[in-house]
Amino acid sequence: MGIAESRRIGRAAILLALADDNGMDTVFPASWKYCCGRVGSMNSQKIVAALETAAKSGHMIQQGVYRETHALYHAIMEALYGVTRGQVQLGDVLRTVGLRFAIVRGNPYESEGEGEWIAVALYGTIGAPVKGLEHEAVGLGINHI
Amino acid sequence: MGIAESRRIGRAAILLALADDNGMDTVFPASWKYCCGRVGSMNSQKIVAALETAAKSGHMIQQGVYRETHALYHAIMEALYGVTRGQVQLGDVLRTVGLRFAIVRGNPYESEGEGEWIAVALYGTIGAPVKGLEHEAVGLGINHI
Amino acid sequence: MGIAESRRIGRAAILLALADDNGMDTVFPASWKYCCGRVGSMNSQKIVAALETAAKSGHMIQQGVYRETHALYHAIMEALYGVTRGQVQLGDVLRTVGLRFAIVRGNPYESEGEGEWIAVALYGTIGAPVKGLEHEAVGLGINHI
Amino acid sequence: MGIAESRRIGRAAILLALADDNGMDTVFPASWKYCCGRVGSMNSQKIVAALETAAKSGHMIQQGVYRETHALYHAIMEALYGVTRGQVQLGDVLRTVGLRFAIVRGNPYESEGEGEWIAVALYGTIGAPVKGLEHEAVGLGINHI
Amino acid sequence: MGIAESRRIGRAAILLALADDNGMDTVFPASWKYCCGRVGSMNSQKIVAALETAAKSGHMIQQGVYRETHALYHAIMEALYGVTRGQVQLGDVLRTVGLRFAIVRGNPYESEGEGEWIAVALYGTIGAPVKGLEHEAVGLGINHI
Amino acid sequence: MGIAESRRIGRAAILLALADDNGMDTVFPASWKYCCGRVGSMNSQKIVAALETAAKSGHMIQQGVYRETHALYHAIMEALYGVTRGQVQLGDVLRTVGLRFAIVRGNPYESEGEGEWIAVALYGTIGAPVKGLEHEAVGLGINHI
Repeated sequence: MGIAESRRIGRAAILLALADDNGMDTVFPASWKYCCGRVGSMNSQKIVAALETAAKSGHMIQQGVYRETHALYHAIMEALYGVTRGQVQLGDVLRTVGLRFAIVRGNPYESEGEGEWIAVALYGTIGAPVKGLEHEAVGLGINHI
Repeated sequence: MGIAESRRIGRAAILLALADDNGMDTVFPASWKYCCGRVGSMNSQKIVAALETAAKSGHMIQQGVYRETHALYHAIMEALYGVTRGQVQLGDVLRTVGLRFAIVRGNPYESEGEGEWIAVALYGTIGAPVKGLEHEAVGLGINHI
Repeated sequence: MGIAESRRIGRAAILLALADDNGMDTVFPASWKYCCGRVGSMNSQKIVAALETAAKSGHMIQQGVYRETHALYHAIMEALYGVTRGQVQLGDVLRTVGLRFAIVRGNPYESEGEGEWIAVALYGTIGAPVKGLEHEAVGLGINHI
Repeated sequence: MGIAESRRIGRAAILLALADDNGMDTVFPASWKYCCGRVGSMNSQKIVAALETAAKSGHMIQQGVYRETHALYHAIMEALYGVTRGQVQLGDVLRTVGLRFAIVRGNPYESEGEGEWIAVALYGTIGAPVKGLEHEAVGLGINHI
Repeated sequence: MGIAESRRIGRAAILLALADDNGMDTVFPASWKYCCGRVGSMNSQKIVAALETAAKSGHMIQQGVYRETHALYHAIMEALYGVTRGQVQLGDVLRTVGLRFAIVRGNPYESEGEGEWIAVALYGTIGAPVKGLEHEAVGLGINHI
Repeated sequence: MGIAESRRIGRAAILLALADDNGMDTVFPASWKYCCGRVGSMNSQKIVAALETAAKSGHMIQQGVYRETHALYHAIMEALYGVTRGQVQLGDVLRTVGLRFAIVRGNPYESEGEGEWIAVALYGTIGAPVKGLEHEAVGLGINHI
């Protein structure tokens, strides 16, 4: 029981977010859906919007179904906790992010009954709004969907 | 200026934490120090202590120098924000973690003047204190040292 | 000693906030002051302002006296914690609220010496800035005044 | 579209938690499941455990299915944010709670496609570990399940 | 209107907490009450308890009156935010504090109608549970009473 | 070992921030750098920017070196936790600050090996955006640099 070794959805999402060239350096079931992209902003609202838009465009979630939007939203917020480490604020505390993101949807568990889950991974830089004055940051949010 | 492509310390730390067999699937300057390990507990104090002990045993930080302990401590705390996503609490809110960690020390920047930095990466599972009732979590903290 | 069964100020405020038609479905001492209203916004500042304005217009607090404004402010903030559950942010994390609020002022304790207290209750929906993509939320803040 | 007026699951849970005698003063679909109970402690772990145990005993969630435990857990945590208002800590900051809780499971939305949701409502007192030195507190967490 | 220059209660409390020898290096109205003390612990509960005990022993608050305990409690919690800077946790994240505290009670405002307020100031060190591996920390909480 | 009695950098910074007339009422090594200033805003971004600008103008940090900006930034953020006590938000929750700040750079430790540290102290008022409806607040952040 538990998470299947070959279906670690969080690990897959992180590796996709870390990938430089969209070339896959991870494996996961072919049936899983995923999408990747980039977003940079001092405006935290824009980060959330970009992730939601990518998920919808990539058919990661069903648009008319709130429970899917809700699942995705909380996964995004949890990933942002890892990137912001304390207060989910960017411009308000004079910092900006440049992120590569990956969203993966599938069942990471051995039991089929666990159904689908969604993982949102973020990797990039956070820092002052001046090129180079930044360091890396990572976040991962996982939710049942 | 900024972070050198081949010296992304956070990326290196995350990849080390994700590695299943301690076999390296990442490259970074041979001059950098790193250590890896595992820790699992419902007690957040034990997680912090295990990371500090590993860093000292692995000669990642100078033991008699507070500034190095201080730099490491904040990197650990920031990594824990990513894992706990909201409140840095484990047993107090009835959850436990099983983590693989990596600590890397080196200069990720193109400029030598940036000196050394430390990255603490955590990857593993968080969930109820029952085997299998858990999902993955990731955290990364980076600090100048 | 303690809270008098018939003077539970928080319970009264919550019931007022839950009431659909301003019709009272709760009882509390006739000497108590209360006011109700509605506010909806993505802007957390506007929520706070609407509550403060309602409290002043409804003569819930003495306008020239800072200690009363201070007591109300903290009760509002505490109620917002319940609604936002983690970060007191709305538009910054791409969400909006539609709330019904109630503010009640009176002494909920058996002892007269406890003086007056203020309760701020919020009930409504929180969610994406799209009609229907939302769920309910509640918050209650109580302070001595 | 959206939340159905007669199926407001959060409102139902709050009213159940506020009910003094387990007598219902709210209506919701007969098909919905719910359970109520009481828990008091300075130990936040015990509060979480009591809610999880009640949910399992009351057949609110399927025990062998992690996605249901996960949904419940986050609803509990969100309800605790409302009760604790800032830091999810009780004894660690020298305070204790005495709570009545209600857990309700059902579909609050007009669309059948939204499936089931779970609401956790908490109502009671929070204060110093001395009888009477306390005020009321409320929390509500809602999640898709 | 506003805070009277010679009655800045927060400034007075901070200066008392900074004073090395209990010798006053600040002035405030002779009618004001104050007390000072020291507390050190990894246990946040003990810090809160020590401050409450000192306030009661020093007749800073009326013991049988909850509104006074409540006012003091929130002032203590706010002071702890300044000391802990992020999560109100000590031993749980493997750190300890050694603090000097001051509690001052009086009316800092020009208007008599503002009544009494309470200020809690903390000054000392926070760090690893090893002598010397620590830096200074300060916190101030102010509330109407 | 540890902090030298005559080189308590946090105490020095706080006393400078409390000083009414820039006249020093504290002593610290002549070799230390420091600067003081004032800033008031509802916009938290402007507070951070004013402190960073003052630090650069006052040659407290080396402008081209990110590790110094990084050290300063975290010291500022930690000082803001003390001022805001819960959520690092000002205008978003309808409050404003008027602060006097001091930044001090030097080695507070007996050991030369500890190198330089930076302390950021804030003292002033926080409250409603109405003159007089405010109370005092203090924050201190310390970091190795």
